[in-house]
Amino acid sequence: MENVIRMVHGAGGTAMQDLIKGHILKYLGWGDSEVPLKYLDDSGVVDNIVLKSDSYTVKPIFFPGGDIGRLAVAGSVNDILMIGGEPKALAMGLVLEEGFPIKDLDIILSSISDTSKEANVVIVTGDTKVVERGSLDKIIINMSGFGVRHKYLDNNLGIVNRYRKLSSRWLLDRNIRPGDKIILSGYIGDHAIALLSVREGIKFRINIKSDASPLNSLVEKALEVGGIVAMKDPTRGGLANLLNEWSDKSGFGIKIYESRIPIRDEVRSACEYLGLDPLELGNEGKAVIAVVPEKADEVLEAIREDPLGKNAEIIGEVSNKYKFVVMETIIGGLRVIAPPVGDPIPRIC
Amino acid sequence: MENVIRMVHGAGGTAMQDLIKGHILKYLGWGDSEVPLKYLDDSGVVDNIVLKSDSYTVKPIFFPGGDIGRLAVAGSVNDILMIGGEPKALAMGLVLEEGFPIKDLDIILSSISDTSKEANVVIVTGDTKVVERGSLDKIIINMSGFGVRHKYLDNNLGIVNRYRKLSSRWLLDRNIRPGDKIILSGYIGDHAIALLSVREGIKFRINIKSDASPLNSLVEKALEVGGIVAMKDPTRGGLANLLNEWSDKSGFGIKIYESRIPIRDEVRSACEYLGLDPLELGNEGKAVIAVVPEKADEVLEAIREDPLGKNAEIIGEVSNKYKFVVMETIIGGLRVIAPPVGDPIPRIC
Repeated sequence: MENVIRMVHGAGGTAMQDLIKGHILKYLGWGDSEVPLKYLDDSGVVDNIVLKSDSYTVKPIFFPGGDIGRLAVAGSVNDILMIGGEPKALAMGLVLEEGFPIKDLDIILSSISDTSKEANVVIVTGDTKVVERGSLDKIIINMSGFGVRHKYLDNNLGIVNRYRKLSSRWLLDRNIRPGDKIILSGYIGDHAIALLSVREGIKFRINIKSDASPLNSLVEKALEVGGIVAMKDPTRGGLANLLNEWSDKSGFGIKIYESRIPIRDEVRSACEYLGLDPLELGNEGKAVIAVVPEKADEVLEAIREDPLGKNAEIIGEVSNKYKFVVMETIIGGLRVIAPPVGDPIPRIC
Repeated sequence: MENVIRMVHGAGGTAMQDLIKGHILKYLGWGDSEVPLKYLDDSGVVDNIVLKSDSYTVKPIFFPGGDIGRLAVAGSVNDILMIGGEPKALAMGLVLEEGFPIKDLDIILSSISDTSKEANVVIVTGDTKVVERGSLDKIIINMSGFGVRHKYLDNNLGIVNRYRKLSSRWLLDRNIRPGDKIILSGYIGDHAIALLSVREGIKFRINIKSDASPLNSLVEKALEVGGIVAMKDPTRGGLANLLNEWSDKSGFGIKIYESRIPIRDEVRSACEYLGLDPLELGNEGKAVIAVVPEKADEVLEAIREDPLGKNAEIIGEVSNKYKFVVMETIIGGLRVIAPPVGDPIPRIC
C-alpha cells in the first residue's frame, strides 16, 4: 500500500504534504529564489515575477455554478493574487481524451474566455494533447500563468511595517504572527457541496452553486487598505488544512470561533447528513486573509463592499497561547482542528 | 466523426491547426499582447516576459535516452529559448493515476532535477493531482515556465537590422524572408524512432536514443553571433510541419535539399521499413534556425561548436520562387513537402 500513489496523495491534506516533502521537495527543492518551491506557498516568485501552475481534474466537468474552464482560470488567477501578485497572462495546457465532444470543448473554451475577461488576464499561449480513448477521464486542463508585483503590495507592506517588522516582501504563509486577525471572505463549503450534489450516486436535492470566481477586485480592495500579512484560498483540504499550514509554517497557534464562520444552512445540513466536516471541504472563490489587528476592521469593511466579500467575517486570530489550531465551539468548548489527512471529497478541482 | 476529438487533433499537423484556429482561437484569441495567442508561436510574450506551457503525455514514460521528466523540462525550456527568451523558472503540474509506483515517480523527479540543473532553471512551484485508477494512463506532466528577454537578443536583432528591417522584437515564425538560410541543428527522427523501438507491438532491433535535451548553450552560441530571425524546434509534425508553419505565416516559400538533411542510417532504414516519412517525425533537442544569409556560415560554425550542434547543416533557404515548401531530392527532382495531417506516431511528447 505504501509504495504506490493513492487518492489521498492528491487530496490537499497531510498525506499530500508527506508526498510533497518526502519526494517532490527531496528532488526539486534545491533551487533558490525569492519564493522557492520549498516554502510550499501557492505560487513561486523569481525575479519579482509570480509563477503559478495548477492542473484541473474536477469531476464532473460541468457543475452547478460553473465548469472546469471557469474553475481553471479562477483557481490559477487566485493563487497569483494570494501571494501579492497581479495576474497578467495565462497559458493553457489542454489534454483531451479521444472522443471528447467538440461541443463540450466549445462550452469550456467560452467559459475560459468569459472568466479570463472577468479576471483581466489574457491567454497568450497553450498546448493541446490528445490521448487514446480510455487513457483519460475526458479532459484535464492545466492553467499556468504569471503575475507582476501587485500595485498596492508595497503600500500594504508599508502599513504592516508601521506596526511590526515583516521580513518578507510577499504574502507568505509563514508571515502570520500572534494578534493577527483572520478574515474569511464568505461562506465555506459551497463548491464541494455543489459538486457532491450532482455526483453520480450521491445526488441529493440541494440548490447550492459553486463559488468559483476570480478574486481580483476583492484582493485589490483589501490591499488598498493595507496591513495584510498573508492570504490563501481554502481549496483542497478546506479551512482546516489552510489554518494548519499557516500554523505549521509560522510556528504559532490559531484560534477560530465556530459561531463566526459563515456557512449556509443547506451546506451545514448536507454535511450533517453525509457525515462531513465543513471545515475540511474545498472552496473556490474564497480567501482567508491575515491582517494586523490595527487594520482588521477596516479591511473587513473594504472586503464587504465587494460582491464576493459581502458575507466576510473575522473568524479568529493568531495566538501564542496554543501551538496548533483550535476552535471555540458554539457551545463554548475548545476543539483542536487537526490537519485533515486528505480532502473527504476527491477531484473537487 | 467530425464532432468529437480524434487522435489526429493532437498530432501537430493540419488537423490540430484546424482545431486550434476553429475553436481555441475563436474563443481565446481576443487578447492583445506583445506575442499573442493568435500568432501561434511556441510561446507567448506579455510585458517582456515569455510564458510557456506544455503537457507531456509521452508513451512509454521511460524510453531509450530519457523519460517523461527529461522531456518535460527540455521541451518547455526549448520553447522559451526558441522565441528569444532566457528560461528562468518552471512550474510543474503533476497528474498521477492512483496506483502509480512511487519508485517510478522518484526516477522521474530525479530526471526533472538533473535536466533543470542542466538547463539552469529552478522549479519554483507546482501542483499534484491524483485521479482514480482507470481515469488516466499513469502520469501526465505539465511543465510551464517563464523567461526573460535573452541577454543576446537585442544584439542579435541589431545585426539582423544591419541587413534588413525586422519589425518584431522576438524570433517569430512570421519573421522569415527570402534569402534567409535555414539551419538544422542535428539528426532528425531520433526521438520518434527511439520511442517506436520500445512501443508495445512495434519492438524492433535498433539502437537509437531520444535526443531530448535543453538547448540553452546552443541557442546562446547562435544568438551571440547574431543575425537570427526565427527559431523553432521540430517536435510534433516534424520538419515538414515546422517549415510549412514558417511558410504559411510569412507568406514565402522554402526550398530544402534532401542531401543536406542530417539523418542517421538506422533512422532512414527504420522509416523505410515502417513506411514513415522522416520529415514528419517528431524531434526533441533539435532546433531549426533561420538566419540572414550574410551570417549563416558564421552561425553554423558557432552551432557546430556546441555538443548538441556538431551535426548541424544549412539545409535550405527561404525563397520567393515558390509559395510553399519544396525539397530538391537526392536524384535532383523537386518534391512538394505538404503539411502533415498529423504526426504519424501519436504521443511522442
